[in-house]
Amino acid sequence: MIYVTRRERFSAAHRLFRDDWTDEQNLEIFDKCSYPNWHGHNYVLYVTVKGDLNPETGFVVNIKRLSKIIKEKITVKLDHRNLNIDVDFLKGKMASTENLAIGIWDELEPTINALGIYLHCIKIEETENNFVEYFGN
Amino acid sequence: MIYVTRRERFSAAHRLFRDDWTDEQNLEIFDKCSYPNWHGHNYVLYVTVKGDLNPETGFVVNIKRLSKIIKEKITVKLDHRNLNIDVDFLKGKMASTENLAIGIWDELEPTINALGIYLHCIKIEETENNFVEYFGN
Amino acid sequence: MIYVTRRERFSAAHRLFRDDWTDEQNLEIFDKCSYPNWHGHNYVLYVTVKGDLNPETGFVVNIKRLSKIIKEKITVKLDHRNLNIDVDFLKGKMASTENLAIGIWDELEPTINALGIYLHCIKIEETENNFVEYFGN
Amino acid sequence: MIYVTRRERFSAAHRLFRDDWTDEQNLEIFDKCSYPNWHGHNYVLYVTVKGDLNPETGFVVNIKRLSKIIKEKITVKLDHRNLNIDVDFLKGKMASTENLAIGIWDELEPTINALGIYLHCIKIEETENNFVEYFGN
Amino acid sequence: MIYVTRRERFSAAHRLFRDDWTDEQNLEIFDKCSYPNWHGHNYVLYVTVKGDLNPETGFVVNIKRLSKIIKEKITVKLDHRNLNIDVDFLKGKMASTENLAIGIWDELEPTINALGIYLHCIKIEETENNFVEYFGN
Amino acid sequence: MIYVTRRERFSAAHRLFRDDWTDEQNLEIFDKCSYPNWHGHNYVLYVTVKGDLNPETGFVVNIKRLSKIIKEKITVKLDHRNLNIDVDFLKGKMASTENLAIGIWDELEPTINALGIYLHCIKIEETENNFVEYFGN
Repeated sequence: MIYVTRRERFSAAHRLFRDDWTDEQNLEIFDKCSYPNWHGHNYVLYVTVKGDLNPETGFVVNIKRLSKIIKEKITVKLDHRNLNIDVDFLKGKMASTENLAIGIWDELEPTINALGIYLHCIKIEETENNFVEYFGN
Repeated sequence: MIYVTRRERFSAAHRLFRDDWTDEQNLEIFDKCSYPNWHGHNYVLYVTVKGDLNPETGFVVNIKRLSKIIKEKITVKLDHRNLNIDVDFLKGKMASTENLAIGIWDELEPTINALGIYLHCIKIEETENNFVEYFGN
Repeated sequence: MIYVTRRERFSAAHRLFRDDWTDEQNLEIFDKCSYPNWHGHNYVLYVTVKGDLNPETGFVVNIKRLSKIIKEKITVKLDHRNLNIDVDFLKGKMASTENLAIGIWDELEPTINALGIYLHCIKIEETENNFVEYFGN
Repeated sequence: MIYVTRRERFSAAHRLFRDDWTDEQNLEIFDKCSYPNWHGHNYVLYVTVKGDLNPETGFVVNIKRLSKIIKEKITVKLDHRNLNIDVDFLKGKMASTENLAIGIWDELEPTINALGIYLHCIKIEETENNFVEYFGN
Repeated sequence: MIYVTRRERFSAAHRLFRDDWTDEQNLEIFDKCSYPNWHGHNYVLYVTVKGDLNPETGFVVNIKRLSKIIKEKITVKLDHRNLNIDVDFLKGKMASTENLAIGIWDELEPTINALGIYLHCIKIEETENNFVEYFGN
Repeated sequence: MIYVTRRERFSAAHRLFRDDWTDEQNLEIFDKCSYPNWHGHNYVLYVTVKGDLNPETGFVVNIKRLSKIIKEKITVKLDHRNLNIDVDFLKGKMASTENLAIGIWDELEPTINALGIYLHCIKIEETENNFVEYFGN
C-alpha cells in the first residue's frame, strides 16, 4: 500500500455559537469565534488516499483526477462561502474544523472508493497553529 | 538606519461588492469575493519600522513594545471580526487588502513616530499567493 | 475518534555532552552540539490529542484550553531557558530532542487524560531538517 | 519506540510517458508530465526511522549519521540527475513519486536495519500540493 | 502608490553548460548544474506591480486579471517545459535564474503597462536557498 | 543590476542583559531574553548581493562561491556558538539581531566587493515573527 496526499485550499467565513446559549456562555466557550459578524480563515485541506500501485502508470491514483474530485465535491462548495449558511453537508452542525473534517470524509469516501482505492485521512489546518485529522470511524 | 519587522496575524471575514452595481457587475469584477454570505482569510501582517540603533540596548525598537502597539491598535480591532462591518478605519471603503494596508498605516504611524523611529512598510498577505505592500504617500 | 493538534513554540539553549567522556569523544559523537558555551534552537512543538466529538460544541477539546495547558505545563518551563540547567523534567538526562519529547509526554499526559481525551503524539522540530515523534510507551 | 525524521532535498528532471502508448494516450493520462523535453522538481525527502532510546546519548540514531547515509545512498544518485535515465534503482520503472518512494525504501532499509533500528516511512514531496508516503510492505 | 504581488509556480528542467567549454570547465563553474541529462526545479515566481488605488474597486489591479496575464504570457510557456529548449524568450541565453527573471520582465512589461500600472519586480526562487530579483533597467 | 540572495542558517545561544543594570531593569527591558542561563534560536540569514550579469555564465555571482564565502566568513563562527562569548565581531556589543546584522555586513562587505559586485542587504530572522534588515550606512 502507498499513501498519496493532495493539498487543496479554500477561504471561508464561519462563526461558532449556539442559539440556545446566552452571549456570555458563547463567549466563555467559543471566545472570539463567537463574535456576531463572522470571521474567516484560509483553510488548508489534505486528502490522503491509499492503494496499490498501478504498474502501468506508476500511480496509486492520477493526482489530477484526485484534485478534480476534491474541487468538484468539496472546495467549490466551501471556497469563498460561509460554512454556517452555505454548506449542505454542515447543515445543523457546529461549523467546527472537526465537523468539517467529518463532513468532507463522508462526501468524498464513495467517490474515492469507486476508484478502487481507499480514503485514509482528511486533515484540515484552520490556522498555522491548529489542525484536525479524521481517519473515518 | 536599520529595519525591524514584526509579524502578527488575524483572521477576519470580508466581502467585496458595491451596492450601486448589479449582482452581475459585482460577480464579473469581484468574482467569488462578491458572494453574499461573506468569506474570510487568515491575514498575515508585517509591520516594518526603521531607525537608528540604541547602543545601550542594541535595539532599534523593543520588539515586544512594537508587538503590543500592533495588537492594541490593529489586531484587536481586526481579529475574528468582519472587515466590512466592524472596523472603524475601513468605514465607507472597499474591504480590499490595499485599503486595509493604507488604513493600518494611518492608524500606526503617529504611535510609531512618537517612539522616535519611522514606519517604513505595511505588508499584508491575504493568501499564500497574494500580498500587498504600502510605504506611505 | 478525531485527532486535534496544537502547535506551540519555544526558544531554548542546550548542549549535548557527557562529563564522563573526553572532549574528543564528545566531539566525535555530538559534533558541534558539544561546543562548550551552549547553542540553541527555535523548537516547534506539536501536541496531538484524540477523542470523541462533543456534539454540543463540535469540539474534541477546546483548543484554547489545550493551548493554555501546554503553555502552563510546558513552554513556560522551556521558553528562553537552558534545557540542561533549568528544566526539572530533564534533570539527569541528555538534553536531546528525543528526551524532550518523552519528558513533555510524561508532563502532559495526566492533565490531558483528566479532560476525558487521550494524548496521541508529541512531535518536536529542532530544526527544519530534524524532528522527533513520540506516541507513548 | 521513538520516531526520528531527517529531511533532505534533491532537484531532478523526469518525464512520465510510455513508449507503447500514443502521444495522445500519454497526454491524456500524464498530461503536462508527458511533455517530450523533460521537466523537473525540487523534491523533498523525509526519512523516518524508529527505535529505542540509547540512554548514553539520548538518541535513537545519530542524526548526522542518518543524514550521511541518506546522502551517500540516495541523494548523490538523484540530485541534479534525470530520474528516467540516471538512477539505477528506477531502471525499467515509471519515474513517478510512488516508485521513487518504494525505490528509496529498498535502497535504505538494509543500511538502516544494520544500525539496530527500523525504517518506518519514506515521504516525498514532489510539489507543495502533492506528496507520497510508503511504509514498506 | 501601492505594491501588489502575485505568486505563481512552475516546474521546469534546465541545465547550465557552454558548448564552447570543456566538460571540466563546465563542471568547475556550473558544478552539478552541468550534468548532461538535465535536472529541474519547482520555481516560484513573484510578480510585483505598483500603481494608484482605484477608489471604486479598492484595487490597484484585479489580482485575477494579473494572475491570468502571468499564466498566459509566462507560466504556460515554462511549466513542465525545458528552459534550454522550449522557451522562446530564453533562446541563445544561459538558462540561469537571472536570465529567466530578465526574460519574464521583458515579456510582461508591455502588458502590465497597458493596464495603467507599472511592473516593479520579478522575483524567482529556484530553491528554498536561492532567489533572484530584477527591477528593470 | 540584478539582485541575488543566498539563504544560510545557524543555531546559536545568546542572552540580552547589561551588567551595569539591575536584574529588575534587565527583566523590564529584555524580558525573557535576560534569563541567566542562556537561550537560543535557529537564525536564518539572507545575504543579498547586486551586480551586472556576466553574459558568459548568466550569473551575477556563482551562488556556490557566495555560499562558501558566507559559510567561511560567517556561519562557521556563529553556528552552534554563543553569540555573547564566542563571536569576535560581536565583542563588546549587545548580542541583538540588529548588531548581528551590522556585524555580518562589516565582515562580508570587503570580500563581496572583491568579487566586483556589491553587498545590498543582510536580513536575519530570529524567529518566524521577528526579522531585521540592514543595507549598510
